[in-house]
Amino acid sequence: MEADHASLGEQMYRDMERLYPLCRSLTGAGVRDTFAILREIAPIQLQEIPSGTKAFDWVVPPEWTVRDAYIADDSGECIVDFKKHNLHLVGYSEPFEGTLSLAELQPHLHSLPEQPDVIPYVTSYYARRWGFCLPDRQRQQLTEQTYRVKVDTKLGPGSMTIGDLVIPGTSQEEILISTYICHPSMANNELSGPVLAATLAHELISRPHHYYTYRFVWVPETIGAIVYLSRHLDKLKAHVKAGYVITCVGDPGPFSYLQTRLGGTLVDKITAHVLQHLAGDYRSYSWLDRGSDERHYCWPGVDLPVGSLMRTKYGEYPEYHTSADDLSFVTPEALAGSYQMYLRCFEALEANRCYRCKTLGEPQLGRYGLYPTLSTRESGLAARQLVDLLAYSDGHHDLLAIADKLGKPIWELQSSVQKLMKAGLLEEVRRGSHRS
Amino acid sequence: MEADHASLGEQMYRDMERLYPLCRSLTGAGVRDTFAILREIAPIQLQEIPSGTKAFDWVVPPEWTVRDAYIADDSGECIVDFKKHNLHLVGYSEPFEGTLSLAELQPHLHSLPEQPDVIPYVTSYYARRWGFCLPDRQRQQLTEQTYRVKVDTKLGPGSMTIGDLVIPGTSQEEILISTYICHPSMANNELSGPVLAATLAHELISRPHHYYTYRFVWVPETIGAIVYLSRHLDKLKAHVKAGYVITCVGDPGPFSYLQTRLGGTLVDKITAHVLQHLAGDYRSYSWLDRGSDERHYCWPGVDLPVGSLMRTKYGEYPEYHTSADDLSFVTPEALAGSYQMYLRCFEALEANRCYRCKTLGEPQLGRYGLYPTLSTRESGLAARQLVDLLAYSDGHHDLLAIADKLGKPIWELQSSVQKLMKAGLLEEVRRGSHRS
Amino acid sequence: MEADHASLGEQMYRDMERLYPLCRSLTGAGVRDTFAILREIAPIQLQEIPSGTKAFDWVVPPEWTVRDAYIADDSGECIVDFKKHNLHLVGYSEPFEGTLSLAELQPHLHSLPEQPDVIPYVTSYYARRWGFCLPDRQRQQLTEQTYRVKVDTKLGPGSMTIGDLVIPGTSQEEILISTYICHPSMANNELSGPVLAATLAHELISRPHHYYTYRFVWVPETIGAIVYLSRHLDKLKAHVKAGYVITCVGDPGPFSYLQTRLGGTLVDKITAHVLQHLAGDYRSYSWLDRGSDERHYCWPGVDLPVGSLMRTKYGEYPEYHTSADDLSFVTPEALAGSYQMYLRCFEALEANRCYRCKTLGEPQLGRYGLYPTLSTRESGLAARQLVDLLAYSDGHHDLLAIADKLGKPIWELQSSVQKLMKAGLLEEVRRGSHRS
Repeated sequence: MEADHASLGEQMYRDMERLYPLCRSLTGAGVRDTFAILREIAPIQLQEIPSGTKAFDWVVPPEWTVRDAYIADDSGECIVDFKKHNLHLVGYSEPFEGTLSLAELQPHLHSLPEQPDVIPYVTSYYARRWGFCLPDRQRQQLTEQTYRVKVDTKLGPGSMTIGDLVIPGTSQEEILISTYICHPSMANNELSGPVLAATLAHELISRPHHYYTYRFVWVPETIGAIVYLSRHLDKLKAHVKAGYVITCVGDPGPFSYLQTRLGGTLVDKITAHVLQHLAGDYRSYSWLDRGSDERHYCWPGVDLPVGSLMRTKYGEYPEYHTSADDLSFVTPEALAGSYQMYLRCFEALEANRCYRCKTLGEPQLGRYGLYPTLSTRESGLAARQLVDLLAYSDGHHDLLAIADKLGKPIWELQSSVQKLMKAGLLEEVRRGSHRS
Repeated sequence: MEADHASLGEQMYRDMERLYPLCRSLTGAGVRDTFAILREIAPIQLQEIPSGTKAFDWVVPPEWTVRDAYIADDSGECIVDFKKHNLHLVGYSEPFEGTLSLAELQPHLHSLPEQPDVIPYVTSYYARRWGFCLPDRQRQQLTEQTYRVKVDTKLGPGSMTIGDLVIPGTSQEEILISTYICHPSMANNELSGPVLAATLAHELISRPHHYYTYRFVWVPETIGAIVYLSRHLDKLKAHVKAGYVITCVGDPGPFSYLQTRLGGTLVDKITAHVLQHLAGDYRSYSWLDRGSDERHYCWPGVDLPVGSLMRTKYGEYPEYHTSADDLSFVTPEALAGSYQMYLRCFEALEANRCYRCKTLGEPQLGRYGLYPTLSTRESGLAARQLVDLLAYSDGHHDLLAIADKLGKPIWELQSSVQKLMKAGLLEEVRRGSHRS
Repeated sequence: MEADHASLGEQMYRDMERLYPLCRSLTGAGVRDTFAILREIAPIQLQEIPSGTKAFDWVVPPEWTVRDAYIADDSGECIVDFKKHNLHLVGYSEPFEGTLSLAELQPHLHSLPEQPDVIPYVTSYYARRWGFCLPDRQRQQLTEQTYRVKVDTKLGPGSMTIGDLVIPGTSQEEILISTYICHPSMANNELSGPVLAATLAHELISRPHHYYTYRFVWVPETIGAIVYLSRHLDKLKAHVKAGYVITCVGDPGPFSYLQTRLGGTLVDKITAHVLQHLAGDYRSYSWLDRGSDERHYCWPGVDLPVGSLMRTKYGEYPEYHTSADDLSFVTPEALAGSYQMYLRCFEALEANRCYRCKTLGEPQLGRYGLYPTLSTRESGLAARQLVDLLAYSDGHHDLLAIADKLGKPIWELQSSVQKLMKAGLLEEVRRGSHRS
């Protein structure tokens, strides 16, 4: 791994350490504090969407504020305390204060008997209730007594904060990168996503010449994506040529790719190509295994070509959606590797142009200094890649298709393309004309 | 098996017992008597086609009547007697009376050396000759003596009887079910076919709401199908969306499906789907293995999408086209199972509509009571089938395609469809618009 | 193998013996002498293309004449002598005369350390230099002394000789057969190609009725094909339906086929069909493995459907492009077998018409004497091929597709086609209408 990538991994990890304690949710101060830190990395544009705003089949919920929340036993000791871990409180819990017997308390408690030492992550965004999450081992030890419960929250008019950042390229054609910022203290899912996205945006801003316009989106999962789609649908449908939901990119597991709804789009092909060459044992998932905002981006009628490049997929590791998905579960090296893999995908997308050979019949490459002038039994092999590249540059096969045909990574063809362009033997066919 | 299906199996078997002794052929009293019994099950419409009628490349043959036919030895004993088994007489034998030596008799005898105890089934519809069929063991024991032969038949102007029954649905689109009624005393091939077809017709008449119009056809094999096609070709080509030749459905062997000429049509896909889910070890045959009226229905220029769902395919069991294909070869249980499998195919065809989700982005299913309001690690799984169904209801994938994608039988998606229609989340796309 | 094929093999071998000693190159007397002999086999039309003529990206080089060329040691003995083997001189060597030390001589010497006993084949058509080729074992024994070198050659205005022969068929649609005549004394690559092409042309001239027009082309590799293409491109693109580069057809190895650029064309399908039925263990190569004039014929923008049917492919045998590719490497039997295989391909192309059955529904084959009039359990099998042929003759499947469907070689269907045409049951669909 390159040195600057390694140090980027450390930097991302430090950013995650700062973000980790914040209590994010669909709305509220935790999201805004998160954006404040992310905006130190990249100049994200924020927008406040008022509670009650309608978007497709959804309505933006009230804003949720937590001041305090705990369960105290009859000795007055706080045995479950939001201040100790924000996962203890069910997301969007309504206010409550009272004393309850254990039997009365139980329906408000959530735990995972199969993982007795972790706090599960539970929310109730669209139905009013309150509840606490705790390790099942602790729950089993609760005795018959009177418990005092306080849920000092507020659910009222406010707004949902969403952010985006559009980095213009030479073309209006867009790559969409979406990630979510609504999960409280968990590291891989989700903090790794928004931090990696901001870091990638930072890098792309510094790169002067790129073809694609890159649109980064940070939104609360589902309602945020729905709102964003509802406000930009026509533009997104017109311009987005490929996209990714970034999530679960901080653990050291092997890479995974979740395909678009029908598969076979540019992002599916490019990502498979990159992973085949750089991450031999990656896992490929169908859209049937989806779980994040690709649900909406790929929805029929929306139909954006958005996949998801992850390391270990959500739902596939036991720490998922529990307090065990903490900072010890992610590593700087894994973050750096994910950063590198995403950049490779972007570079492959950028490289994937469509060319046409300008001669009829094989050109006389010797005239251009591209072929040995002495013809021996092996002389043809030296220039074979150049000639193959020319021979399949028929205006129909894009560079990705040619690379796949030749069994080489697309980036290894780049210098050949440059040589042939410089020699005047290859011309670029209008971008996009080779994509349907 | 459901109780009423079991009793239907018994009923079909009893119907076959009554039909078995009749001497059916392309024409004649045996066919008419057969129709009389079948019409007790379903109100088949009959039509008499005069001898000499031309149809495509064929001509309806004269009507054939058998009064008596036997071979007597020189002691006067009837050693081969049509009255004992109608397979003894070659179908469409011309009249003859005379005495012959064994050597003169031999060219008129037909037997199966490899199955020495059965009478083979032989016909000569379009070339005039006479002949007798007998077990090879008996033939080998014939001694040199004078044999008296009497074939008291009549071949003269008359008509061929064909029958059909059209059960209207809400649409003009048709399912064609064809079976044949020209074989003398054999049970699986063919009595099982016409009896099952009549029983299915009886059932469909009693079902009030079905989309498809069901057209049942009972005809002598080949010439009957040719005549029927020649009279209804334009209408059939316009309306038939799927079809079956029903034959060999009474034996207890595993199911078989013979595909349409080019394969890949609706009936091929639906039947494979049903068999995959209900009859794991079924056999699939190419149209190259054809042998019944799918020969004509799928003929180029006719091109009706007609397959054949059978149990053991004709030609694949040794009893085929011999006296051993008798009532002991078929069982009420097998008939009931075939009945059930055909109904499943019809139900799958009926269910195979094409829908479109009415929301952009995933709908908020909780609002419709279709999704848990508490979001835990498993909550998404509960409604996964509903959401997948919506997500692939894009107006292009029909329900069959979605069921295959989800790896579920189409009938298991029906209640989900109902829920989503009721919630107003799904709309039906015009039937047929998704079929080519 | 048939007797006349065997004797043709002997004849071809004798022709090769006469041609072998000639010093062919891109231009010059050796090529003209070669044509003189080939014209004894078939009436090839010759054309002289002046040096300096431009064609696509290429220019016809000056004409090259060799009068003498040798290296003599200080005792005056010729140790490397063009007169002993024309491979000793690098093709297109410029004139030179002088004395050199061993160190000065070495850069002008070419040998193969891994095959120390053979003379390699080396050329320098488009960059001026001189050089000698010799066995590496001899080269290693050269001692420090003064060597006298004489390269008495001439490079000056002249012309390049190319030849073609068009054998008209009833149609303007063409089969293109191209081979090259620029290699000095080597047998398999290349003498086997031009001799087999001439012999095939001789045979086709004697066949009166063929559908396709056969265009045979004998040209120096690359520059000759480029010139030929540049002069006939529009006509070739309009008419050529299939084509072959003939090379490496004299060794006794198994057959090989090198596919067209994108594969899947008529010539790819026909050749695979022929080889599957006649040469079980043939090898199939992608166009990525190309090496001869299919490089230009299949070039994008040219896009002629030209493959190459060989025995052991160039580059795949150690004798390739060395003095070991001599007359002992090829055999009359192998030449005869290649002749036979090419004729089979032509016959398959000729046979591959598209038919349509003239009846609706299966015809009554008994009426035409094509079906047994007695219907027994096996009677259908006898005529099965006839009926299958009719049933897939739908105006869309050509005979090749039907043969592949039935798993039979196309030539085994020919007599059935004749019977059905004679009976008036089949009609030919306009040629070409079934090809894209």
